[in-house]
Amino acid sequence: MSDSLQQRLFQELEALPLIDPHTHINPHAAASKSLGDIMGYHYYTELAHSAGLAKNKIEEPGISPKEKVGRLVPKLSALENTAQYAWLIEICREFFNFEDDRITTENWENLYDQADKVLGQSDWEQQVLKKSGLEQVYLTNDFDDPLEGFDTSLYVPCLRTDDLVFHLTKSDVRERLSKATNRDLGSIEDLQAAIRDLFTHFTKNGARACAISLPPDFSPTLVPSGTVAPYWSQLGRGEKLNEAEAAQLSQFVFWQLAENCVVFELPFDLMIGVNRRVYENGVFQGQDLYDKRTSLIQYRDLFNSFPQVTFPISVLTSTSNQELVSYSWIFPNVIANGHWWYSNTPPYIEQDCRTRLTAIPQTKYVGYYSDMYKLEFALPKFRMYRRILAKVLAQEFVVDRGWSEKRAVELGHLILRGNVETIFGR
Amino acid sequence: MSDSLQQRLFQELEALPLIDPHTHINPHAAASKSLGDIMGYHYYTELAHSAGLAKNKIEEPGISPKEKVGRLVPKLSALENTAQYAWLIEICREFFNFEDDRITTENWENLYDQADKVLGQSDWEQQVLKKSGLEQVYLTNDFDDPLEGFDTSLYVPCLRTDDLVFHLTKSDVRERLSKATNRDLGSIEDLQAAIRDLFTHFTKNGARACAISLPPDFSPTLVPSGTVAPYWSQLGRGEKLNEAEAAQLSQFVFWQLAENCVVFELPFDLMIGVNRRVYENGVFQGQDLYDKRTSLIQYRDLFNSFPQVTFPISVLTSTSNQELVSYSWIFPNVIANGHWWYSNTPPYIEQDCRTRLTAIPQTKYVGYYSDMYKLEFALPKFRMYRRILAKVLAQEFVVDRGWSEKRAVELGHLILRGNVETIFGR
Amino acid sequence: MSDSLQQRLFQELEALPLIDPHTHINPHAAASKSLGDIMGYHYYTELAHSAGLAKNKIEEPGISPKEKVGRLVPKLSALENTAQYAWLIEICREFFNFEDDRITTENWENLYDQADKVLGQSDWEQQVLKKSGLEQVYLTNDFDDPLEGFDTSLYVPCLRTDDLVFHLTKSDVRERLSKATNRDLGSIEDLQAAIRDLFTHFTKNGARACAISLPPDFSPTLVPSGTVAPYWSQLGRGEKLNEAEAAQLSQFVFWQLAENCVVFELPFDLMIGVNRRVYENGVFQGQDLYDKRTSLIQYRDLFNSFPQVTFPISVLTSTSNQELVSYSWIFPNVIANGHWWYSNTPPYIEQDCRTRLTAIPQTKYVGYYSDMYKLEFALPKFRMYRRILAKVLAQEFVVDRGWSEKRAVELGHLILRGNVETIFGR
Ligand SMILES: [Zn+2]
Ligand SMILES: [Zn+2]
Ligand SMILES: [Zn+2]
Repeated sequence: MSDSLQQRLFQELEALPLIDPHTHINPHAAASKSLGDIMGYHYYTELAHSAGLAKNKIEEPGISPKEKVGRLVPKLSALENTAQYAWLIEICREFFNFEDDRITTENWENLYDQADKVLGQSDWEQQVLKKSGLEQVYLTNDFDDPLEGFDTSLYVPCLRTDDLVFHLTKSDVRERLSKATNRDLGSIEDLQAAIRDLFTHFTKNGARACAISLPPDFSPTLVPSGTVAPYWSQLGRGEKLNEAEAAQLSQFVFWQLAENCVVFELPFDLMIGVNRRVYENGVFQGQDLYDKRTSLIQYRDLFNSFPQVTFPISVLTSTSNQELVSYSWIFPNVIANGHWWYSNTPPYIEQDCRTRLTAIPQTKYVGYYSDMYKLEFALPKFRMYRRILAKVLAQEFVVDRGWSEKRAVELGHLILRGNVETIFGR
Repeated sequence: MSDSLQQRLFQELEALPLIDPHTHINPHAAASKSLGDIMGYHYYTELAHSAGLAKNKIEEPGISPKEKVGRLVPKLSALENTAQYAWLIEICREFFNFEDDRITTENWENLYDQADKVLGQSDWEQQVLKKSGLEQVYLTNDFDDPLEGFDTSLYVPCLRTDDLVFHLTKSDVRERLSKATNRDLGSIEDLQAAIRDLFTHFTKNGARACAISLPPDFSPTLVPSGTVAPYWSQLGRGEKLNEAEAAQLSQFVFWQLAENCVVFELPFDLMIGVNRRVYENGVFQGQDLYDKRTSLIQYRDLFNSFPQVTFPISVLTSTSNQELVSYSWIFPNVIANGHWWYSNTPPYIEQDCRTRLTAIPQTKYVGYYSDMYKLEFALPKFRMYRRILAKVLAQEFVVDRGWSEKRAVELGHLILRGNVETIFGR
Repeated sequence: MSDSLQQRLFQELEALPLIDPHTHINPHAAASKSLGDIMGYHYYTELAHSAGLAKNKIEEPGISPKEKVGRLVPKLSALENTAQYAWLIEICREFFNFEDDRITTENWENLYDQADKVLGQSDWEQQVLKKSGLEQVYLTNDFDDPLEGFDTSLYVPCLRTDDLVFHLTKSDVRERLSKATNRDLGSIEDLQAAIRDLFTHFTKNGARACAISLPPDFSPTLVPSGTVAPYWSQLGRGEKLNEAEAAQLSQFVFWQLAENCVVFELPFDLMIGVNRRVYENGVFQGQDLYDKRTSLIQYRDLFNSFPQVTFPISVLTSTSNQELVSYSWIFPNVIANGHWWYSNTPPYIEQDCRTRLTAIPQTKYVGYYSDMYKLEFALPKFRMYRRILAKVLAQEFVVDRGWSEKRAVELGHLILRGNVETIFGR
């Protein structure tokens, strides 16, 4: 296979403006203010910590962004091989006129200052959106987000529901829900009404998805409200639930969410497989891992019970990818969604992309989302994906099946953008 | 690695006539009668359904084959990327003089009519066998198949035993067994004798294998007849078994099969890992999926207890492939068999083939079987496999190890055909 | 990607002298005495047995090394495709001037005699170390090894602890421990003191690691000495422990080892995932397999409890590799170590190496160890790894990221040797 073929396909894919269907962007502070925002991304802090930098050096209270970057820089040499480091270099070269291959103790201050100049421009947010070819950016909003003060046609709200499913046993979460919906939550019917209110609020404000991340052992199933009503009352009286009761409450709330997805016609993004706080002394957002012993068979009841709901599914590991391929191939309501977190490095993306593209209907694979916290990361992450997609299209379709390049690019456009519009659009 | 090397190896592999060691061919209607038979293959109906075509459109009672094809065609555009679609196009181009790249609402009727002409020829069955280089086709026969009215040296019987192991709790299955063996099945000894009768009947008619597909949680072990005798009596009296009792009966019958494989010198094909009817409202044969949490360690007792029996093993997922590689490498009676179902797409085949060819004795890997329901599918499926095998031989053996092309082709022939003869032949 | 690029990188990697951080070398008989030592390696006996050679042919008591080789040779033709066979040919060509591609019934006796001449040289051990570029070889020593009579700066002791953790329920193991430490082991405190004695003895003699292989279901956790003290007394009185009690004793001893690794500043090599004696009638060392349903989450308590201990981890299967990548990426004390046993063939190494090199800090991946029993195997095994490493460096770093070849080679040197020195050195 010629490298120039792959390069031509990549250029065609690069030209396509994007919708990013899952991010953690704060619409009130979407772009970075300094290199500290960029290098403060958990990928860099957790990898630097993994390579030996103490957590209390990284997270010392009160240090300035520049001081933090200065502490991280010496450890960067240990991370130069990683895909994550390649994103960082690409950001610096594309946006900050950085011309070196490495960030070192010698060159970082110049880079920091240059970044300050660029990021300090009043229209930087618009510039970075344009340079990155981003037309829409989907958010991850807390259930009690007022969704005010930003353009929801550019920054599209999504209702994130981890707190509702897994943390309603905490009084502060119940209070947030009560306040957000202006309801007393005494009865289980109140809880149901409050959840419905959230969907009304979010869809009124242009929300395009309900979303949640799930631990490896979660198995959704229908739990009758009569079963959990007494648990809900216990919580109201300030009593604790045992593990089994809390698990049933989680299942009950999860099922409510799915039912509201039917009513409000929202896709339900499932991000499956993460155990929170496995490394208890890790840095912020650098504590989560997983148990690979999980299966999509745990979602059998859900997929069968909600044929009207579309479930874009992300799996944390490549060992779960074949299940995702097979379940998307069989279930009309299951969609393979992006390349998530621990599988978001080139070798995993390539194999997962290749297996999806050759087995799932082409309308059922959403190629990529950036999962970014700051806008600058869309460009290098999507570029990494587009390179890999170009490689797979070149090998599997142009070379092996004799497709024209035009046809391969059309398939690429569908995977990169067309399916986002069809699946999340309205 | 040069593409022409791979191409030369492929041509050598293409020239080899085949024995297809596992199919679902009906020897009384082996070839397709119309394009409806070809596009009615569950891969197309389930993928079209997955892409949004309603089950009741596909399976509406009484519609003609042409009507059915006409309903499927508009959905085909969503499947053009899949390996399964590539088989379909290859069939149409090889057999029906189809010259387009895609089947569309514009060209399908011409194609349908052209297929009718070809398939309507009185000697089409012989033609397709010849064009596909098929010398023998192994079948999948119900235990009560009379095995009459066809040439068993061309269409080789295999005793399929899923019903015996998993459905003897149903009275109609017991009645079929009673009728097939002309025995009253009152006692557990009667059941044992009936099973022996089936082996006698099948081996008299040239059977070459006993075969079964197994769910992910099955663990065969020896259960004494004394344990299940009372359960058998309960069934005879019309009583139900509980789950544990039914599971023990399954294990008992499975062990009986293995014991008969010793006596009758038959290999025992195990197809491991499928859960039936996971998607309850799926189309016919498009409802089965799996739980990847399964292990060949569950077969430890079996492999140790029956050193005289050869177990050609198919695994449903590529995540089970490394276990198959390792178990075939250690156990003399374990054979890696083909690339099955959800692993039967090019990226999975390539990785699984590569790992097997570099670690298992070359006499212990049966390269491929088509699993086809109609003869026309052998050509595109085996061709897909031969392309991949040529690629692996070129890269791993000619380039990396400096083998001559001749030697690589000899290895390819062994994997494609020689091992089928040694392992299943008599 | 050009083959010559890969070739140039390989040559650079080949030039680097090595430290082999895990072997089973007997320092009193490190080199082979005859071809029988080489072909008696379990890879050849188990594969020949798997291909049909009876165990009693291979292990018949009293046969000479030459007779044994003569019996294995006819079966070698079935193994020519395997990576293991490629090691054998490479040994014969590099060391014994063998010029054929295959070992056959015609040429093996000449080869045997030629090997005798080479291996019979008085300085062969030094020769093979030199030809293989080996500067240090780490051992696997029984806990009661006197560690005398060899140069521990060349052959570096490592304390292997499987017997302590899993076999202290056997009186002969307790007696060996008592004798080695010259202690009565009446109380649990005696046991703790004896374990400490072993660490003193080993570190005095230059030991660089504590090591253990672990079954798939092992989950280390803190068990108080008070819990196991009565079990220890039971054992002392000649009573048996039940399974749960024995498991707690294993956990207790394991935790003691980790605590001593803190005190004595030793890395703790964990080789995770092997079930012993799965194939009960297999040849010597050819009986072990595994259950892939295992997870590094089982080690969560350990990694959190011992931040001061470095855990170089080997996983038995490539299906566990992504967990190893992710856990090394997050936990500062987790290191990805080599490519072990059933994952030590080129396709698994390549994918595992590629995923590690693009996601783990480059200081946290120890590329390879030979696991050899005789010195002659270091050359072909490391050469296999270096070829693959060169391929990954060429593709992922030089081609995809535009690195200079020099920079890629530096990364390769770090992975091959630098990290061994940093992680195991003192
Ligand atoms: Zn996210
Ligand atoms: Zn089949
Ligand atoms: Zn070892």
